Amino acid sequence: MKIAHYKAVPAKRFDSGPAAGVEGRVMIGAADGAKNFCMRLFLIEPNGHTPCHSHQWEHELFIHEGAGEVLISETWSKVAPGTAVFVPGNTTHQIKNTGDKTLAVVCLIPPGPPEL
Amino acid sequence: MKIAHYKAVPAKRFDSGPAAGVEGRVMIGAADGAKNFCMRLFLIEPNGHTPCHSHQWEHELFIHEGAGEVLISETWSKVAPGTAVFVPGNTTHQIKNTGDKTLAVVCLIPPGPPEL
Repeated sequence: MKIAHYKAVPAKRFDSGPAAGVEGRVMIGAADGAKNFCMRLFLIEPNGHTPCHSHQWEHELFIHEGAGEVLISETWSKVAPGTAVFVPGNTTHQIKNTGDKTLAVVCLIPPGPPEL
Repeated sequence: MKIAHYKAVPAKRFDSGPAAGVEGRVMIGAADGAKNFCMRLFLIEPNGHTPCHSHQWEHELFIHEGAGEVLISETWSKVAPGTAVFVPGNTTHQIKNTGDKTLAVVCLIPPGPPEL
């Protein structure tokens, strides 16, 4: 079992190249005994964004706080706290913060790819 | 792909027997093409609670809003927005709202069990 607030979980910063102003945390992963899927949390600063990329595995996203937009294929959509997003595998995607506060996004992946 | 705020997703109410004051929604499931895990959202009213039970599959929880406590095995722990909880399979667990506002919990399960 594990119970952890994200502020108590070590963060990895992504702030160069295709990502800007992003902090990532593995909230629940293989080291916790979670074999079927991995929960990460990304905090994206105002004007920050994740890479625009595509990969074989899917994402399940849940917007926790903040205001932003999500790109899926060629379409940007506004998202708000309480919005869930399913990004199928092999689909171009990106998340950007369009608000003035931190955008917090729960992002789940299946086992196999790097957890962070 | 799917983008949906939970307020736009049909809810199922659990308000008798071992559950009280709970609304559940499948945010991302097999019907959306998600084969590896299923995202549900549970809204729990003040004084409401999920069943105290145990099953073979694990949960990955993320507290979105509200104040509550989570039982794992024999221990209750306070949780707050931004807290992640890993409940291994075959472990007794329950969630209760101890605040005066709705407790909103993202709850993920692997494929196999009923989605809701």
